[in-house]
Amino acid sequence: MSAIKYRLIKKSGMARRAELETPHGKVQTPAFMPVGTQGTVKAMTPEELRELGAEMILSNTYHLYLRPGHERVKRLGGLHRMMHWDGPILTDSGGFQVFSLADIRKIREEGVEFQSHIDGSRHLLSPEKSIEIQEALGADFITAFDECPAAGQPRDYVIKSMELTNRWAERCLKAKTRNDQALMGVVQGGVHEDLRVRHAQQISSMGFDGFSIGGLAVGEEKNLTYRTIEITTPHLPENYVRHLLGVGTPQDIIEGAMRGVDIFDCVMPTRNARNGTMFTHAGKITIKNARYQDDDGPLDPRCDCYTCRHYSRAYLRHLYIANEILAMRLNTIHNLHFYQELMARIRLAVENDSLESLRREFDWNESSVENEEQNS
Amino acid sequence: MSAIKYRLIKKSGMARRAELETPHGKVQTPAFMPVGTQGTVKAMTPEELRELGAEMILSNTYHLYLRPGHERVKRLGGLHRMMHWDGPILTDSGGFQVFSLADIRKIREEGVEFQSHIDGSRHLLSPEKSIEIQEALGADFITAFDECPAAGQPRDYVIKSMELTNRWAERCLKAKTRNDQALMGVVQGGVHEDLRVRHAQQISSMGFDGFSIGGLAVGEEKNLTYRTIEITTPHLPENYVRHLLGVGTPQDIIEGAMRGVDIFDCVMPTRNARNGTMFTHAGKITIKNARYQDDDGPLDPRCDCYTCRHYSRAYLRHLYIANEILAMRLNTIHNLHFYQELMARIRLAVENDSLESLRREFDWNESSVENEEQNS
Repeated sequence: MSAIKYRLIKKSGMARRAELETPHGKVQTPAFMPVGTQGTVKAMTPEELRELGAEMILSNTYHLYLRPGHERVKRLGGLHRMMHWDGPILTDSGGFQVFSLADIRKIREEGVEFQSHIDGSRHLLSPEKSIEIQEALGADFITAFDECPAAGQPRDYVIKSMELTNRWAERCLKAKTRNDQALMGVVQGGVHEDLRVRHAQQISSMGFDGFSIGGLAVGEEKNLTYRTIEITTPHLPENYVRHLLGVGTPQDIIEGAMRGVDIFDCVMPTRNARNGTMFTHAGKITIKNARYQDDDGPLDPRCDCYTCRHYSRAYLRHLYIANEILAMRLNTIHNLHFYQELMARIRLAVENDSLESLRREFDWNESSVENEEQNS
Repeated sequence: MSAIKYRLIKKSGMARRAELETPHGKVQTPAFMPVGTQGTVKAMTPEELRELGAEMILSNTYHLYLRPGHERVKRLGGLHRMMHWDGPILTDSGGFQVFSLADIRKIREEGVEFQSHIDGSRHLLSPEKSIEIQEALGADFITAFDECPAAGQPRDYVIKSMELTNRWAERCLKAKTRNDQALMGVVQGGVHEDLRVRHAQQISSMGFDGFSIGGLAVGEEKNLTYRTIEITTPHLPENYVRHLLGVGTPQDIIEGAMRGVDIFDCVMPTRNARNGTMFTHAGKITIKNARYQDDDGPLDPRCDCYTCRHYSRAYLRHLYIANEILAMRLNTIHNLHFYQELMARIRLAVENDSLESLRREFDWNESSVENEEQNS
């Protein structure tokens, strides 16, 4: 009996419109999870996230383990209570951050030895440890500890890595003790089609409550990302939630949804906001650009978010240049609104079988407004 | 005909309970103005300020002149519209910042030459320039350009400085063209009682719409601050608003109100919040202190602000240590709530003739909780 229920509402090609029932309420999918790395979605309150349409968030096991510590979070009543977010949460396994952030690491059968990027302290993250941490944090969805090989690894390495990930997956399933958390199995296999198929089949057979597709959008070509998703999802069981880890741009999300992904997470909307890169319906805008210093118009004339209703590009530029906290807030509100509005349109498009026209609408959105106009 | 009306509601000793009518609505005094240095009260939205009880804010002429530039603010519809704050605003003259922040300065009859603390560019701030800038910004209350001598200047210097400030005051009154702004004259005179009295009389006779007391809380002893206010206010006309520039602690504000001050501004609640120093009814708290790492209680059990209703000290400490923007937000909400609640209690105490008992309640609040407990 899984802690969550997956209720399919409508299929459109490979795309799925569904509802997740979780211990902390329902989630309409396809859904985007804002990332709350350190137990807070940077610059936002939980009430603001809710108002922006976020029904579910992601938080990072690696970061919370190191600071404030999972046992402390548990003593404080768990992650939901500590951070005052009463909706569903998904935690990742910590694996990806160990491989991308930690200073020195050594992969062994037992787990991964690493040094904290904060203070250099030494730690071992293993399947059992990752589950222990994630049970202490208490998210609704937790993730099996996997090895995420760097992009471009040779086929032999990827095979060995998959085999290790399988042994770790079994250990995660065995280590799990809480019945109110759904455990997600992670599919790897690089961009090798046969390995992805094989691994999807292997992970699917183990008894997980949902499935995450890992190791994508790590530098490979977009077409390869999309192709890999496309050949993976048919080998995952129906009626189980599918998470595409750490992806991506608006286009990536549309393409992922078209290939049967249900939930997405990415730091892009929030991190870009803090760097002053704003998503608009006309393309990306770099708000610190001098061209906006006297621009009295809203960031995105087609947007009705709080930021676009009340503030000019000129003021947003001023706040950004002056390094004001309000810049981070207003920019984050806008970018998250852009993403959540996109998800609402994707859900509607699955219902109306119109994903292809939505995809075409966002086709050109990768480029920036400034480049567009310079090139024209 | 002044742009604002001062309506006295009740006197209690020297203290005044009044209502200001301004072009942007009414203000109940005694009032505290959160400081929006660069056209934003750091970390807050205007809606949040309003909800916290702020009816009026202060913004800094020096900062807005340098960035984004007063002419730009004017093109963007003025400060109210640019920053989306529809309540009254007071701007200072820029003088204090020129004397405290700018790199190189030269005081001449004409004005003050200085170099920007941002980019080293050279500028001249004169009475006429200050009024020009403040008219472009468009605040409801603007402030005459004065010389603010550093603390501890000899009597001769203070006298010369007052005379210069008087000539500048006349030039400010002459330079003013807008009728929808109240011009505040600034009383200086250091901590020399006879000079304060003389200057209060001189500035009072010139035709200003309100009066600011400058040059206090710049390092002198508290008793001297309070004594100086006490001998100054009787020489200012009744039925005109009185502003104590840049002051201060909760105690300072109570003492100021008891001596007839109507409006206060200070960066203390907001700056302290960003440094993790929190005002509570039990004294000050340094939230980064390790003693709070497992403290599941609210910052201040007697507080009903958003922060205290939903977050623990342990979580606030975590956010602060992790350098999260939400720490700045939650801390600022709490400290501004503390100040605005204080002002509401001061207003009530003037009405009830109970300021003395309120003063005693806050007498010990200067010290920190941590020191209190270490000393006990």
